[in-house]
Amino acid sequence: MECSPIGTVHTPFETTSEAPRQGPHSDAEGIVDVDPAYREGLTGFDAERVVVVWWADRADQDVLTLDRNADRGVFTSRSPARPNPVCITECTVVSVDPAAGRLRLHGVDMADGSPVVDLKATL
Amino acid sequence: MECSPIGTVHTPFETTSEAPRQGPHSDAEGIVDVDPAYREGLTGFDAERVVVVWWADRADQDVLTLDRNADRGVFTSRSPARPNPVCITECTVVSVDPAAGRLRLHGVDMADGSPVVDLKATL
Repeated sequence: MECSPIGTVHTPFETTSEAPRQGPHSDAEGIVDVDPAYREGLTGFDAERVVVVWWADRADQDVLTLDRNADRGVFTSRSPARPNPVCITECTVVSVDPAAGRLRLHGVDMADGSPVVDLKATL
Repeated sequence: MECSPIGTVHTPFETTSEAPRQGPHSDAEGIVDVDPAYREGLTGFDAERVVVVWWADRADQDVLTLDRNADRGVFTSRSPARPNPVCITECTVVSVDPAAGRLRLHGVDMADGSPVVDLKATL
């Protein structure tokens, strides 16, 4: 099951360790740039919130328990370190330009340059 | 970015079209079976809710707008049909057996047999 990036997210966090642990605790703004081939997927985008699915490409994929607590498995946490480092961050949409493939978001927690694999409507 | 299944979900829905559109509207129960190699990731699992990240392996990956409405891009929706069919369903945990790698869940909306790529704590 091959995940192809649909774009990239730009944030103020150079590394995963600088990034806040979870989006809801983040006041940071970031930009998602959707690659030209996928911009049609933003047609009619007018939501105030969006779920960003991204790949923590610098995360350790060879761990099953938490570094800070070996009594907790990775599936009990939101740590990016896990077999498939697919991460989920719900953000507020500050502005969107579907034609340019650009979303300006509030509440980002990704490391700068992380690949984005999906954008979804919130529930 | 290769996603490896960590397990499989078993639900009453034979096909994606039978599955409810979104977990919150589902009263169905299902089972996630985590593969032996990943069961350690369930260590200490005691949550009442869990986020299941799964791969809609029968979804159309070659669409950017909705079948039912070409004025809406897939990134404005939760449809499984999208370039990377990574789906997210938050479920209630009915019971869990970490050693057996088995979670019994309420509120499933996956097609039976879908690969599971991650389990996460809710926020």
